Amino acid sequence: MRVDVISTVNEARSEELSHKTVIVIDVLRATSTIVTALEHGSIGVIPIETVNQAKSSQTSEDLLGGERYNKKIPGFHFGNSPLEYMSEAIQGKRILLTTTNGTRALNKAQKADYVIAGSMLNARACMKVAKRLGKHIAILCSGTQDEFSLEDGLCAGLLIEELLTLNEFTYEINDLGRVLYYAYLHKQHDLIEAFMQSDNGSRLCKLGLKQDVLHCAAMNTSDIVPLLKNGILVPAKF
Amino acid sequence: MRVDVISTVNEARSEELSHKTVIVIDVLRATSTIVTALEHGSIGVIPIETVNQAKSSQTSEDLLGGERYNKKIPGFHFGNSPLEYMSEAIQGKRILLTTTNGTRALNKAQKADYVIAGSMLNARACMKVAKRLGKHIAILCSGTQDEFSLEDGLCAGLLIEELLTLNEFTYEINDLGRVLYYAYLHKQHDLIEAFMQSDNGSRLCKLGLKQDVLHCAAMNTSDIVPLLKNGILVPAKF
Repeated sequence: MRVDVISTVNEARSEELSHKTVIVIDVLRATSTIVTALEHGSIGVIPIETVNQAKSSQTSEDLLGGERYNKKIPGFHFGNSPLEYMSEAIQGKRILLTTTNGTRALNKAQKADYVIAGSMLNARACMKVAKRLGKHIAILCSGTQDEFSLEDGLCAGLLIEELLTLNEFTYEINDLGRVLYYAYLHKQHDLIEAFMQSDNGSRLCKLGLKQDVLHCAAMNTSDIVPLLKNGILVPAKF
Repeated sequence: MRVDVISTVNEARSEELSHKTVIVIDVLRATSTIVTALEHGSIGVIPIETVNQAKSSQTSEDLLGGERYNKKIPGFHFGNSPLEYMSEAIQGKRILLTTTNGTRALNKAQKADYVIAGSMLNARACMKVAKRLGKHIAILCSGTQDEFSLEDGLCAGLLIEELLTLNEFTYEINDLGRVLYYAYLHKQHDLIEAFMQSDNGSRLCKLGLKQDVLHCAAMNTSDIVPLLKNGILVPAKF
């Protein structure tokens, strides 16, 4: 089985996604937010590219969430902080989510056979599901404005570690995946420091959102695996 | 001072190179070959993009070197194995070198203030020179056919380690650079294994070129810093 890591959305070519299980990562913060929302009772998250599309798709049962440049969008119920999605208000609700990078990556990945939203929070659960799906795996790091993001890279390394831990089967891993695996192994006991030094982590801290960074750096705290079905991310059931 | 690592030639945008010192890496094998040739008495290496340009630029004093898909080009004096460039035949000669990825990266880097050919062999010497030049630094990994290459990434990590060792000054390092630094620190005592598992390393081994891989994985064996001057890479003198 092959595992290929792709560094940014721009780098993803169609042939690298089709017939595969694609795990989309946007650790700070879209995919961590999606996992947190489903963990706290949302019935599904629809990744949407533009603010206008989100507004025009909304029904009375839906909530709007998202950000542009780390800030909540005017008129939306929630921003992109995962901590907001622990509220009772999201119980039983569908969320239309639009963010700068993560939702773009999720939509680009729709060429794949299966699309999963991965994060540090649900890494182990993701890889159990991906392994069961039996396809080659592409791990798509969303990055930030077409630049590679450290926290997505360390999460890709963690995902590979979880897969290798599942069995002794030798996976073919691309060069970027190997390097990120090494990087994760080096920093696994010091992830918070690494996250704080990353471009996104330090930017969020400056905006007073350090608690978001700490939340998103926690490993394997959730068994929720958001799987895209007909355009909606819902918890995978096996 | 900023240090930015760029993952492949395609990713390099002009504004990321101008007014900087750009260190071009193609560990397997172009930049390792260039260092080895200058170490063994060549007076200069001209990186050339196409086979025809190399042939038409040649004077009677020049030697032609290069490869396409890891193989020597018909009619050329040498291929792209650094071991060939230890020959006495290159003493006092200029070499016109064309390779699949490295020479393309070197030519793309010409927008920079200074262009250096870096490798594991001369990493420490490169960073001493780059620091003295006083500009922001971009480390351009050549990659292979627009894919990131593991050995270039680990070399970028080593270059950062050497720079940080030179003084306690805090450099601003981009996210990719940080991750490659972590990866290097994890694998620094096990580089041969990492190189052998990389796409390029395993391909070269299958072609019977394991000795090339071993040669290129050696750290800080040369003080030669090839610096581009009027289109020719010559040993930097300070």
